[in-house]
Amino acid sequence: MSPQPPEKNSSHLPALPKSPTGIPGLDEITEGGLPKGRPTLVCGGAGCGKTLLSIEFIVRGALQFGEPGVFMAFEEKADELTQNVASLGYNLEQMQQEKRIKLDHVHIARSEIEETGEYNLDGLFIRLGYAIDTIGAKRVVLDTIENLFSGLDNQGILRAELRRLFDWLKEKKVTTIITGERGDGTLTRHGLEEYVSDCVILLEHRVSNQISTRLMRIVKYRGSVHGTNEYPFLIDKEGISVLPVTSLT
Amino acid sequence: MSPQPPEKNSSHLPALPKSPTGIPGLDEITEGGLPKGRPTLVCGGAGCGKTLLSIEFIVRGALQFGEPGVFMAFEEKADELTQNVASLGYNLEQMQQEKRIKLDHVHIARSEIEETGEYNLDGLFIRLGYAIDTIGAKRVVLDTIENLFSGLDNQGILRAELRRLFDWLKEKKVTTIITGERGDGTLTRHGLEEYVSDCVILLEHRVSNQISTRLMRIVKYRGSVHGTNEYPFLIDKEGISVLPVTSLT
Amino acid sequence: MSPQPPEKNSSHLPALPKSPTGIPGLDEITEGGLPKGRPTLVCGGAGCGKTLLSIEFIVRGALQFGEPGVFMAFEEKADELTQNVASLGYNLEQMQQEKRIKLDHVHIARSEIEETGEYNLDGLFIRLGYAIDTIGAKRVVLDTIENLFSGLDNQGILRAELRRLFDWLKEKKVTTIITGERGDGTLTRHGLEEYVSDCVILLEHRVSNQISTRLMRIVKYRGSVHGTNEYPFLIDKEGISVLPVTSLT
Amino acid sequence: MSPQPPEKNSSHLPALPKSPTGIPGLDEITEGGLPKGRPTLVCGGAGCGKTLLSIEFIVRGALQFGEPGVFMAFEEKADELTQNVASLGYNLEQMQQEKRIKLDHVHIARSEIEETGEYNLDGLFIRLGYAIDTIGAKRVVLDTIENLFSGLDNQGILRAELRRLFDWLKEKKVTTIITGERGDGTLTRHGLEEYVSDCVILLEHRVSNQISTRLMRIVKYRGSVHGTNEYPFLIDKEGISVLPVTSLT
Amino acid sequence: MSPQPPEKNSSHLPALPKSPTGIPGLDEITEGGLPKGRPTLVCGGAGCGKTLLSIEFIVRGALQFGEPGVFMAFEEKADELTQNVASLGYNLEQMQQEKRIKLDHVHIARSEIEETGEYNLDGLFIRLGYAIDTIGAKRVVLDTIENLFSGLDNQGILRAELRRLFDWLKEKKVTTIITGERGDGTLTRHGLEEYVSDCVILLEHRVSNQISTRLMRIVKYRGSVHGTNEYPFLIDKEGISVLPVTSLT
Amino acid sequence: MSPQPPEKNSSHLPALPKSPTGIPGLDEITEGGLPKGRPTLVCGGAGCGKTLLSIEFIVRGALQFGEPGVFMAFEEKADELTQNVASLGYNLEQMQQEKRIKLDHVHIARSEIEETGEYNLDGLFIRLGYAIDTIGAKRVVLDTIENLFSGLDNQGILRAELRRLFDWLKEKKVTTIITGERGDGTLTRHGLEEYVSDCVILLEHRVSNQISTRLMRIVKYRGSVHGTNEYPFLIDKEGISVLPVTSLT
Ligand SMILES: Nc1ncnc2c1ncn2[C@@H]1O[C@H](COP(=O)(O)OP(=O)(O)O)[C@@H](O)[C@H]1O
Ligand SMILES: Nc1ncnc2c1ncn2[C@@H]1O[C@H](COP(=O)(O)OP(=O)(O)O)[C@@H](O)[C@H]1O
Ligand SMILES: Nc1ncnc2c1ncn2[C@@H]1O[C@H](COP(=O)(O)OP(=O)(O)O)[C@@H](O)[C@H]1O
Ligand SMILES: Nc1ncnc2c1ncn2[C@@H]1O[C@H](COP(=O)(O)OP(=O)(O)O)[C@@H](O)[C@H]1O
Ligand SMILES: Nc1ncnc2c1ncn2[C@@H]1O[C@H](COP(=O)(O)OP(=O)(O)O)[C@@H](O)[C@H]1O
Ligand SMILES: Nc1ncnc2c1ncn2[C@@H]1O[C@H](COP(=O)(O)OP(=O)(O)O)[C@@H](O)[C@H]1O
Ligand SMILES: [Mg+2]
Ligand SMILES: [Mg+2]
Ligand SMILES: [Mg+2]
Ligand SMILES: [Mg+2]
Ligand SMILES: [Mg+2]
Ligand SMILES: [Mg+2]
Repeated sequence: MSPQPPEKNSSHLPALPKSPTGIPGLDEITEGGLPKGRPTLVCGGAGCGKTLLSIEFIVRGALQFGEPGVFMAFEEKADELTQNVASLGYNLEQMQQEKRIKLDHVHIARSEIEETGEYNLDGLFIRLGYAIDTIGAKRVVLDTIENLFSGLDNQGILRAELRRLFDWLKEKKVTTIITGERGDGTLTRHGLEEYVSDCVILLEHRVSNQISTRLMRIVKYRGSVHGTNEYPFLIDKEGISVLPVTSLT
Repeated sequence: MSPQPPEKNSSHLPALPKSPTGIPGLDEITEGGLPKGRPTLVCGGAGCGKTLLSIEFIVRGALQFGEPGVFMAFEEKADELTQNVASLGYNLEQMQQEKRIKLDHVHIARSEIEETGEYNLDGLFIRLGYAIDTIGAKRVVLDTIENLFSGLDNQGILRAELRRLFDWLKEKKVTTIITGERGDGTLTRHGLEEYVSDCVILLEHRVSNQISTRLMRIVKYRGSVHGTNEYPFLIDKEGISVLPVTSLT
Repeated sequence: MSPQPPEKNSSHLPALPKSPTGIPGLDEITEGGLPKGRPTLVCGGAGCGKTLLSIEFIVRGALQFGEPGVFMAFEEKADELTQNVASLGYNLEQMQQEKRIKLDHVHIARSEIEETGEYNLDGLFIRLGYAIDTIGAKRVVLDTIENLFSGLDNQGILRAELRRLFDWLKEKKVTTIITGERGDGTLTRHGLEEYVSDCVILLEHRVSNQISTRLMRIVKYRGSVHGTNEYPFLIDKEGISVLPVTSLT
Repeated sequence: MSPQPPEKNSSHLPALPKSPTGIPGLDEITEGGLPKGRPTLVCGGAGCGKTLLSIEFIVRGALQFGEPGVFMAFEEKADELTQNVASLGYNLEQMQQEKRIKLDHVHIARSEIEETGEYNLDGLFIRLGYAIDTIGAKRVVLDTIENLFSGLDNQGILRAELRRLFDWLKEKKVTTIITGERGDGTLTRHGLEEYVSDCVILLEHRVSNQISTRLMRIVKYRGSVHGTNEYPFLIDKEGISVLPVTSLT
Repeated sequence: MSPQPPEKNSSHLPALPKSPTGIPGLDEITEGGLPKGRPTLVCGGAGCGKTLLSIEFIVRGALQFGEPGVFMAFEEKADELTQNVASLGYNLEQMQQEKRIKLDHVHIARSEIEETGEYNLDGLFIRLGYAIDTIGAKRVVLDTIENLFSGLDNQGILRAELRRLFDWLKEKKVTTIITGERGDGTLTRHGLEEYVSDCVILLEHRVSNQISTRLMRIVKYRGSVHGTNEYPFLIDKEGISVLPVTSLT
Repeated sequence: MSPQPPEKNSSHLPALPKSPTGIPGLDEITEGGLPKGRPTLVCGGAGCGKTLLSIEFIVRGALQFGEPGVFMAFEEKADELTQNVASLGYNLEQMQQEKRIKLDHVHIARSEIEETGEYNLDGLFIRLGYAIDTIGAKRVVLDTIENLFSGLDNQGILRAELRRLFDWLKEKKVTTIITGERGDGTLTRHGLEEYVSDCVILLEHRVSNQISTRLMRIVKYRGSVHGTNEYPFLIDKEGISVLPVTSLT
């Protein structure tokens, strides 16, 4: 059989839906935002801006796009988070009262891990499900994933559990950011999350000649064209702003 | 005995048969495509294009070369895959209905691994065999191999199991792409698959001076001359296209 | 719904309160000092200046800002500390007598670790709480954190214990410096403390072409703008002085 | 006693006998070929040319030098090997029928390793001995050694077993090539084989600035002068040819 | 409360007492010698000069400063040490007879370690205490620390034992040099000793462009200003001499 | 007490006795040869020249300096060694018959290691002692040390055993070369031998820009001045010759 050009018949297929972040520059390099209804991994070292980017995603989602959001924090408490972004002009407390967002601080006690050797994912689902339903959330943040899976060594089991989490989030039809800590030579500590996620954004705080630069890169975006270079970004009193300084490829 | 020039008598020997991919540029640097009826390993980091290249191999196989294909996915579900390539002009759903391709999403539950410590290869053979037979597939993709062998530590046993999988695929006479995740300092996580495979293609997404480039290299091709350099490739709204910019060696 | 600019309503929100260190230059690059009532991690290799910076924080807190402070040392004894900073013009003994500061040397015997496999955090709380209450301390130093957690391997448990320590300190409403030893390729030995801390300061003693330079970097500061570059600093007969030579970003 | 110049009395001593490979350039840089009756290790990464060099050694040995040879393959089956070198003008099938060479594919099943934890070397000796005797082989290839020793962790035992294999081959008076896979920072996976072998040839496929080069180096040759640099080589439709571009040292 | 300049009141505080080494240049960069009555760690690779520096510290202490010293060697025997420094003009045997120094070779037998898993520190204290008292030693060398702690893996316990050793030495009021072997990426094998020691001197033998240079660096000196750069030093027929070629910081 | 210049009184002390190797250049950079009656470690990767240097030490010792020598080989058999140096003009067989040297090949069987987990050092002493006494050997080579200690993991025990071996050799008053295989980032596999040895010579075969160079460095020489740089050396039909191209330091 002689080769034929592939018949293109996608005219009636919907393009991949996206959730805009509202963060200046980021929606440009992602060509419209994060994959709607899917989990995005935001990873990087300590202080690279994971939490800030996640909060802006939730706050701007609520304020600019009318989408309520749940921020599930394992690191910072609600009042700490509130205080940390006050200078950016965000009043998280007021937004909570208006039921536009919900901050949920999960405290994991030592005993919880010692009993079963790992954090109980089912408990998380109940708690997160309740938070989502309460405000009709369309956006979710889990900050950070390390708190959920620190006890799992077996790569196969970890992969299965990551899928379980991601599948649950997809069924809930929420657009999710999951933050992850940088590994040694890998994007994440386990080096697995980046393979299972639909979208991966890497934040870096690079120092060269004693001058630091913040850089963002879309490592992976299933189903979409996007800017593939490293884009400098700023964190200042206006929050995060990305400079999409190079043209899209 | 005095040395003699080797008597060449291969005139009647058939050249190594190949399966064209239809991907612009790739069939040029492989001098005709992937080794027919043999497994090819496509490896690289998260977001390098493993899944996309594999899908094009199946879709183009069906549309351009009339070869039905099975895509066995451990990562993405059928509807997700469909959505991810819709913008490329491929309608996977329609192609499934026309029995030109078959998408099979395998969900591996935690319990499956916990029971035996590893994924059941025999179960895979039954399921994959059934899928192949249903549409008379000539091409197969397994995306990704990490899902099959994450529980195996012993190098000898892993090698034996890899051979078992590869032998089964060869007996089925299907041309196969198996995708693999990048290891630390090795082509794959286990650092073994590249030695057992007949053909190895490495995809990379390299960032230098904040500019990213996608590069493809044929690391190994048993039985065939091929381009040996790194070739830049693009992923855009037309899918993958390789630039065979240097001459063959 | 059409996107709207985020409504800024933070005018009535308090800015993040800070504790000035009094160390020349450091309060400039931190825009006012360390986060008040929160723990700051000061990390670096042997001899980088962790202990000295911590002592100045306590001494200057007491002398310049009228805030009594507790220095809990696992490394050096009270008289050794006193002798080590005598040449800087600090008389720790006298300051102790005036109840402006309190030096507490904790001796951890081998048996203590052998019995339970780890240092008893509850014992620390009682002892530290007593020291804080005695002088009404507003500042605390723990030098170094390695002494507390050397027995803990499990990342999940270590994270839980770090949080327990940090939560206790926050409840006590003391501004704390915790020193940490440099890890291999990570900021700290466990590579965890920097993720849990609210503020992370890295000290380095870098040698290039046989000339050494001391450099300080604010790796992370939750809730605040700060200088992000590497700033040279000196340790001389006046103690530590930082040169905020580049402008704030 | 006053030092005297060493009395040279080797005139009647035989030089180290060698087996020519017939591969263009290789016999030049080895000054005559591989050490006759001794094992040579050919090592390198996937696709560097180990198998091809080994086959040429056997084929050219049979055709050019009248020495029958046994190729014991753990990777490729006889018909695959045949197909892989068909384009080079070698008809392995015909050569087998003429009893000039013997291809022996050893299939190692998982159960074999699981039972004893390692591959049975005595079984190999019987099988290989039979193959050697059948055609009066003077040359042998074992491709690759990793299949034999993957279960052995103890360095002392591995060394003892390597010696047992090498001694057996020497007693059989066959000139042998054993191929080995590249280790991380070492020439071989175990980092031992290169110390026990009499001759070690390293093959590399190096990529720089996106251009690849194949390089060969004689790492070690007990008892003989040889070229010590890295020599570029080609694999094309004529097989392997080495360019002895630098003069011997 | 408004900030006040810190009230300096150290006029009556004694500066940190030091023990001069008498080694040309070293007392300059340390501004007077090693910390009196405290332990100093001298670390570096094989052949960097640890033992030689330690012997000069003892010999010059006895001859130039009238301070008797004990050299406790785990590596070299008394007569070997004597022979090794004979060419430097030191007659250790005679100095022993004059009770100015004492060489004590400790032989650790395999059985000693096998019984308890570690070397008996209490036994060391008795033996060393006796040696110190015999000659009224003011200086002590332990060459090398690796012999004492090779069996200890647990970081917490090792730290506790190091402190026990250092506290014992401080109580004995002897100025001590402890030598330590270089670790991989750390100053010492355990990467702990440098954090516990009051003073750390690193010796290096660096080779660049086939030319070697010996370099010395004061990594850390609690309580004192010192030269912080790398200083070249020589070992020749006069022993060690340091070139304090850069000015103090 | 005011400092006095150290009273030099070594005039009557004997300089460190040395055993010349007779190898051109080597006795120059060692200022007379290896330390007489002490063990020297010669280490390096596969093919760097350890065995050749050791044989020349024995052969030249016997022929040039009238000192009989024992070569205890774990790698090569007597006839192989003989053949390997035949082209250098050395007739080892004849020298054996003249009782000027003794070649002793020790075969370590797997069972020997499996029984006790390690090689029996006492057995070695008996065998080596017998060989030494037979010909009144003054020089000994052990090629290579890895064969003796591969089973020992515990650093403390390994150190104790190394000392036991070295002490035995010193009591026998033989000048010894022990060869050792290169470790990863360390001079030897265990990274211990170089600390215990009195003299350490490192051989390297470095490749740069595809050109190889052989380099020798005296890493350490207790008790003696020596050349400290890297010196190029050749292995050709005359054996080893070192080019002492830089002046002594
Ligand atoms: N539909 C699409 N259109 C354009 N680019 C796409 C599309 N889908 C994926 N890509 C690009 O291809 C990259 C690789 O995707 P994928 O094949 O899923 O990577 P991998 O399987 O190697 O993780 C994505 O990160 C994105 O940059
Ligand atoms: N028949 C052939 N014709 C030309 N080149 C070939 C042929 N067979 C193999 N090659 C080339 O030689 C390379 C090395 O093959 P092989 O010897 O199988 O590698 P290895 O055994 O080291 O993994 C292949 O990757 C390919 O580039
Ligand atoms: N309110 C703020 N105003 C300005 N900059 C801030 C603010 N909060 C945080 N930052 C900056 O953002 C950085 C990243 O903070 P964060 O998002 O908490 O990092 P991560 O979660 O990745 O550890 C901080 O180190 C600081 O430099
Ligand atoms: N009293 C002092 N005067 C001048 N410099 C000092 C004094 N004390 C310490 N230093 C310098 O500060 C360095 C760091 O000391 P320290 O704070 O104890 O380090 P760390 O706690 O990080 O190990 C010392 O190595 C020394 O160079
Ligand atoms: N007889 C010889 N003539 C010339 N060169 C030789 C001879 N024997 C060995 N060589 C060279 O010396 C190198 C080192 O050999 P050897 O001493 O056996 O190395 P090692 O013991 O360090 O593994 C060989 O690889 C070869 O290049
Ligand atoms: N008597 C001496 N004369 C001159 N140089 C010597 C003498 N003794 C040792 N050296 C030099 O000093 C180096 C270091 O010796 P040593 O102090 O024993 O090292 P370390 O204890 O760090 O292993 C030796 O390798 C040698 O270069
Ligand atoms: Mg965060
Ligand atoms: Mg994929
Ligand atoms: Mg300190
Ligand atoms: Mg091969
Ligand atoms: Mg020493
Ligand atoms: Mg050798």
